[in-house]
Amino acid sequence: MDFANLDFDRKNRTGFPEVVFCQGKADDFIVDIFQKLYERDGSVFGTRATEHQYNLVKAVLPNATYDKVSRILKVFPSDYSEDNLIGNIAVVTAGTADIPVAEEAAQTAEYFGSKVTRVYDVGVSGVHRLLDKREIIEEANVIVAVAGMEGALASVLGGLVSKPIIAVPTSVGYGANFEGLSALLTMINSCANGVSVVNIDNGYGGGYIATQINRLAVK
Amino acid sequence: MDFANLDFDRKNRTGFPEVVFCQGKADDFIVDIFQKLYERDGSVFGTRATEHQYNLVKAVLPNATYDKVSRILKVFPSDYSEDNLIGNIAVVTAGTADIPVAEEAAQTAEYFGSKVTRVYDVGVSGVHRLLDKREIIEEANVIVAVAGMEGALASVLGGLVSKPIIAVPTSVGYGANFEGLSALLTMINSCANGVSVVNIDNGYGGGYIATQINRLAVK
Amino acid sequence: MDFANLDFDRKNRTGFPEVVFCQGKADDFIVDIFQKLYERDGSVFGTRATEHQYNLVKAVLPNATYDKVSRILKVFPSDYSEDNLIGNIAVVTAGTADIPVAEEAAQTAEYFGSKVTRVYDVGVSGVHRLLDKREIIEEANVIVAVAGMEGALASVLGGLVSKPIIAVPTSVGYGANFEGLSALLTMINSCANGVSVVNIDNGYGGGYIATQINRLAVK
Amino acid sequence: MDFANLDFDRKNRTGFPEVVFCQGKADDFIVDIFQKLYERDGSVFGTRATEHQYNLVKAVLPNATYDKVSRILKVFPSDYSEDNLIGNIAVVTAGTADIPVAEEAAQTAEYFGSKVTRVYDVGVSGVHRLLDKREIIEEANVIVAVAGMEGALASVLGGLVSKPIIAVPTSVGYGANFEGLSALLTMINSCANGVSVVNIDNGYGGGYIATQINRLAVK
Amino acid sequence: MDFANLDFDRKNRTGFPEVVFCQGKADDFIVDIFQKLYERDGSVFGTRATEHQYNLVKAVLPNATYDKVSRILKVFPSDYSEDNLIGNIAVVTAGTADIPVAEEAAQTAEYFGSKVTRVYDVGVSGVHRLLDKREIIEEANVIVAVAGMEGALASVLGGLVSKPIIAVPTSVGYGANFEGLSALLTMINSCANGVSVVNIDNGYGGGYIATQINRLAVK
Amino acid sequence: MDFANLDFDRKNRTGFPEVVFCQGKADDFIVDIFQKLYERDGSVFGTRATEHQYNLVKAVLPNATYDKVSRILKVFPSDYSEDNLIGNIAVVTAGTADIPVAEEAAQTAEYFGSKVTRVYDVGVSGVHRLLDKREIIEEANVIVAVAGMEGALASVLGGLVSKPIIAVPTSVGYGANFEGLSALLTMINSCANGVSVVNIDNGYGGGYIATQINRLAVK
Amino acid sequence: MDFANLDFDRKNRTGFPEVVFCQGKADDFIVDIFQKLYERDGSVFGTRATEHQYNLVKAVLPNATYDKVSRILKVFPSDYSEDNLIGNIAVVTAGTADIPVAEEAAQTAEYFGSKVTRVYDVGVSGVHRLLDKREIIEEANVIVAVAGMEGALASVLGGLVSKPIIAVPTSVGYGANFEGLSALLTMINSCANGVSVVNIDNGYGGGYIATQINRLAVK
Amino acid sequence: MDFANLDFDRKNRTGFPEVVFCQGKADDFIVDIFQKLYERDGSVFGTRATEHQYNLVKAVLPNATYDKVSRILKVFPSDYSEDNLIGNIAVVTAGTADIPVAEEAAQTAEYFGSKVTRVYDVGVSGVHRLLDKREIIEEANVIVAVAGMEGALASVLGGLVSKPIIAVPTSVGYGANFEGLSALLTMINSCANGVSVVNIDNGYGGGYIATQINRLAVK
Repeated sequence: MDFANLDFDRKNRTGFPEVVFCQGKADDFIVDIFQKLYERDGSVFGTRATEHQYNLVKAVLPNATYDKVSRILKVFPSDYSEDNLIGNIAVVTAGTADIPVAEEAAQTAEYFGSKVTRVYDVGVSGVHRLLDKREIIEEANVIVAVAGMEGALASVLGGLVSKPIIAVPTSVGYGANFEGLSALLTMINSCANGVSVVNIDNGYGGGYIATQINRLAVK
Repeated sequence: MDFANLDFDRKNRTGFPEVVFCQGKADDFIVDIFQKLYERDGSVFGTRATEHQYNLVKAVLPNATYDKVSRILKVFPSDYSEDNLIGNIAVVTAGTADIPVAEEAAQTAEYFGSKVTRVYDVGVSGVHRLLDKREIIEEANVIVAVAGMEGALASVLGGLVSKPIIAVPTSVGYGANFEGLSALLTMINSCANGVSVVNIDNGYGGGYIATQINRLAVK
Repeated sequence: MDFANLDFDRKNRTGFPEVVFCQGKADDFIVDIFQKLYERDGSVFGTRATEHQYNLVKAVLPNATYDKVSRILKVFPSDYSEDNLIGNIAVVTAGTADIPVAEEAAQTAEYFGSKVTRVYDVGVSGVHRLLDKREIIEEANVIVAVAGMEGALASVLGGLVSKPIIAVPTSVGYGANFEGLSALLTMINSCANGVSVVNIDNGYGGGYIATQINRLAVK
Repeated sequence: MDFANLDFDRKNRTGFPEVVFCQGKADDFIVDIFQKLYERDGSVFGTRATEHQYNLVKAVLPNATYDKVSRILKVFPSDYSEDNLIGNIAVVTAGTADIPVAEEAAQTAEYFGSKVTRVYDVGVSGVHRLLDKREIIEEANVIVAVAGMEGALASVLGGLVSKPIIAVPTSVGYGANFEGLSALLTMINSCANGVSVVNIDNGYGGGYIATQINRLAVK
Repeated sequence: MDFANLDFDRKNRTGFPEVVFCQGKADDFIVDIFQKLYERDGSVFGTRATEHQYNLVKAVLPNATYDKVSRILKVFPSDYSEDNLIGNIAVVTAGTADIPVAEEAAQTAEYFGSKVTRVYDVGVSGVHRLLDKREIIEEANVIVAVAGMEGALASVLGGLVSKPIIAVPTSVGYGANFEGLSALLTMINSCANGVSVVNIDNGYGGGYIATQINRLAVK
Repeated sequence: MDFANLDFDRKNRTGFPEVVFCQGKADDFIVDIFQKLYERDGSVFGTRATEHQYNLVKAVLPNATYDKVSRILKVFPSDYSEDNLIGNIAVVTAGTADIPVAEEAAQTAEYFGSKVTRVYDVGVSGVHRLLDKREIIEEANVIVAVAGMEGALASVLGGLVSKPIIAVPTSVGYGANFEGLSALLTMINSCANGVSVVNIDNGYGGGYIATQINRLAVK
Repeated sequence: MDFANLDFDRKNRTGFPEVVFCQGKADDFIVDIFQKLYERDGSVFGTRATEHQYNLVKAVLPNATYDKVSRILKVFPSDYSEDNLIGNIAVVTAGTADIPVAEEAAQTAEYFGSKVTRVYDVGVSGVHRLLDKREIIEEANVIVAVAGMEGALASVLGGLVSKPIIAVPTSVGYGANFEGLSALLTMINSCANGVSVVNIDNGYGGGYIATQINRLAVK
Repeated sequence: MDFANLDFDRKNRTGFPEVVFCQGKADDFIVDIFQKLYERDGSVFGTRATEHQYNLVKAVLPNATYDKVSRILKVFPSDYSEDNLIGNIAVVTAGTADIPVAEEAAQTAEYFGSKVTRVYDVGVSGVHRLLDKREIIEEANVIVAVAGMEGALASVLGGLVSKPIIAVPTSVGYGANFEGLSALLTMINSCANGVSVVNIDNGYGGGYIATQINRLAVK
């Protein structure tokens, strides 16, 4: 931890505490930073964690919980309650293989206090499945659209609803998807309006900005 | 014409005569090759022609016709008649800017003897426009789907109909469409089934293979 | 106009009327579509228009106005008034060369009813210029960050404010910026939170989604 | 299976049942979805399966069969018979290393009811091998051309036969083939006519669209 | 000429004199360098010249000749004679649009003393045209294969003949040929043996290395 | 070692001895080359070494030391002393994940005789952390700026200080960072002045050129 | 000028005044900003200017000078004298076509007070030309290496001299140079030490950082 | 072997027998094809073999030999003798890490009857090492230049010698070398003459075409 330079003022400036990107971090570092942040904030949130990292953290912070699908490792604040979640964010996926990224988005939003509606496996190669859910989706304040092989999901959604869409391309696919580049380009070039895009597989980023928008809508 | 090496046997092997890709060809060459092919076959078909090339050809082949939208320059065979067109090919576009490429496909198919149904400006950012045309499209033997900014059109079509789809990406768009590359990748990665893809802006190629399929369906 | 397939229901579904992407459209088509939309809606909005197109439209719709910087060609609704603009969108640029894209975003937002605060030429190579404006920017509900050579603007903003940021990469630059690709990648990879990205030079798209968010915040 | 959203109407719309893309799916999910689809349809078809997945499925569906080369895991319908296969699809490969993708195409087509003629290892670096097979290939209604290092196969075939060609680029090769990108570009740019292309290594997609065309030819 | 740093020793080291790449050179510079090299060597050879440059040079070096197709501007040595040309280089093209690059190769080889056999418009989409010329091509010591849309030419040639092939990709084509990149990748990945590749449109480079090989074969 | 061709004169020409790039080198080769260089120079320096390689070298050169973070394996000259380090190089990182590359730079510079000031984890998404360190950084003669997800660090630094900046992009990140390409493009396109860039993850190269500059400043 | 946000403190922070990137700037803006900066600083420096812009500026600032090769438009400070130039920067080019970028670098360095030694047209395809100049180059404090087709220049220089090298890739070339990308990659991947790289055609950036280093060396 | 389609006529057409690309081939297939070719030809040659494949083949063909560096697995013809090797091919590498690819080239050439001169580790970052070998290299009929990080080797060689150079880019390097792409582009864009390029890591291809040229030179 000698080198880590915690940003104590972040919550004041941005309304969100620091989070930990666990991928590739050394064992000592992970344990240390989870402890330091927990001591300061009474809670801590990490993405892209392994089960091994979970076990290390759990040994020192017994309240830590881990979700295998989203790979989120966290300690809730002591006063966290699902009853306090506000607003409504729809998290939508094209296929079932996109669910891990979608769960990262959904659980990020929930941790930061947003209510989430999940609408999964409604990709546009069977467009009626999506049309059937149009009203449920429109009820949300903001939509997180998660898709790999069917980046088209964002385009179709953009023309169906009035709410802003945060598109999250995933690396799901093979061949000329080039590990998510194709989905990213599809989404960036969508001629539907009201679509903006975050990094490939960046469920966390999608959940974060959706929470910002959801908070604005509730205020 | 000294260097051009006409492929006299092509029609026997492939069922289609040679065509002329006019773009960038020198004036002398264009006139010469149109004459040679007309003498041999009694008809001739050129793509990506300019009005200037049309004027040159018309001076020697008064029956030549030119369409500004598709940029096709041709002399119909003397026995050509719209009444003899067979089968049914649906040519579908996402936007109005995709129409020049779509017309290249449609007029190619018509020249080679196929009946064509045009369904234009039904891009998926207003997906009901496409759903309204589902039955008309399903009636065709094969579909040519032409789209630039909304490569998603092919994915949605693939899940709606039972007929093979030839997707033609167009260079329509700007920024990260990289002159059609984005639409091409979207179409190649479609997880809808029954979609295959030709080169960017290659309306001719789409019309050609659609004609092959249409002929098989009619036989 | 034979082929154009107007989407009459769009405003009901999405809360926004159809707009016209003027670039590359034929003269007849532009005049026709402006007239049709004006007749239906009493107003019409076009992007990437040329002065030539403006002159054509003005001849039939004398209320049409044109802005050379943003290249927006529009007829305001008869009841449009700046007094009715709601909320607050900050449009921020890195350099002066990014202003045309920023103005497309700002004027789009204003046309759709949002109040706009312009903060231009505050790129991060002179980061104090940006820090000086932090409070003005934080007051907005949503930020549109427009930058070419300095895609870094979005990263720095993301750590300074609590509001969602819509990043618009521009094609300003040369060499290895690859016509905006570099700025797009910088913005997509920003490890600051609360940043999502639209297509290169897509000021319109940035203004649209910012308006959606601004409306949510005001409601 | 909570999240999977089966598309019960797909067979009515498209003439094909749902299939399972097994790659990367969790064990529980694979067993569950094979059971659900088998209960509904009396048959089920999965691509890119591992032997491990085969063993899991076989435990609950003893009729399941698995082919190591094509990696297809399936349960035939009870009334499936090779005697009922219709028409003729030629599946052609450039080299022996392309055979796994070719078999995915061939066995997909057979499962969906098409007769298949295999013509393997006839790449154009020994073009007489291909010319020797010209008549056998021409007899088919449609050709699936599978090639990695020799994407040229599709171009040569396109000039030799009158039937539509579905080109499947493979990731076979090394260095500047960039995992199939080179073969894909070769095939997309072929100036032979009658060639369209599916995703890299997408044998399934090639077999599917070839079946659509074969059905049209037989009807 | 102040800055130009002529390499007087080059002919001793490499067996070839300096040549001038005329494209983009200023008028003064072109005249000056042609004069300097002519004074030193009694001859001079420039590629990618314009007619305007030809006129400038002709005014001071009346023996200068210019070929519009190859864009080569040169002054032959006074003892140059076609009777002294040695060996045999086959220059082969796929289409007629590849001829300008092929002529740059052929005329380069002739200037440097090689006999050239031209075999044009024998692309593999009509492979019999190529097979018909096999013996003529095999007679050469080395082959320059020039192709844009049909990079496949090099692969097929590689399997037909015993002589080394220098492949020259051209920028002829459109869409996903990406200005010759596709042809370059096709040629570099050819699994035929005996093929090596020079830069896109680099006819000069192809003619140069072919001359080196031809000289070795004659010695 | 039969094939290795040691460059005995390098130190005379460049002021630096040869170093060993250990990655992927065979065991025998590593031991042999470390011994040969140690015999000649009395010291030896290797980058990207594994612990396994360290153990092999330590067996024959007991003075060898290894640092797990930087992966540098070296034997100091017998007269090496920290007291002799000259000048001042600031090594700055955006995040903690960039530290391994930064340490390669820092320890390279120290081995070659430069004093180093480390300023880590001051990425621009919390720009005040960087501003707090401005004076410490300005005191250095040259700055090595190491960043992956936040290539923006170099731009902001460029506008804050008067010293040359050597930017080292890292492969830290995921998705559209394309293994460091995005950071490299961000840094190359920086419109801040005084920034130049070395290869992705090339801490060694950054430390080397910084030492050259530091030596000039001290002389 | 309403939007331009001049950075009055820049000279204090960085030791260099603001400069104007003239390319694409509107006429009014250019005149206005040159006047404003001249009033404030008594001098002004612009890059990538056209002759048209020069004429506009000259009308209001008669001391303005313009160099056609480097495209630099400037007004020297009243006390500027070549006698005050300090240190030594070698600007080296591979070919004559690289000279415009080299002159931008050289004249930038001179404007900012550095003495410059020009060594042009010493590309490595005639490596003795470079070896002949080794001593002249080694005498400089820092080297700016400018090359397009022969990015190799930086590698060879890196092994010949002890001074830091700032490599400037140029867009000179054709085909697979992809407008400078190839030269940039060659230079970034150089395994010679002491080489760092700025943007394609960025002579200004090369001259700037070379001046920073030269100042350090003289101090 | 059912599917393999041996090309019995290849030796007659091209002067070379078929070879086996062993990478990724199944165990049964490797044994079978080595036996079949050995029976027919009395010798057999395979590239990119593993030791495991060697052991399998050795069990049935005890004369098989394997070289770990080049990964070539072969059975020499019974009358093979080093005394019969003809001509001279220089195989040159930039670094020691390029030696495996160089040995594939060298041993391929030797198997096909050429004498080979190895000149290794003479990369241009220490250009005197290369100049020292100039005469040895010039004596060869043709040069194979193998380099990864220093693609520049081919450019420098091209200006030093009169013989044709076959450049083989290798995937040696890291970061922005993009697995050999950078070296390939450097070599393709070389402005030295007499350089042509084969695929990344394609030592076999380099050795093959060098043998063709060497045979021509000896005849």
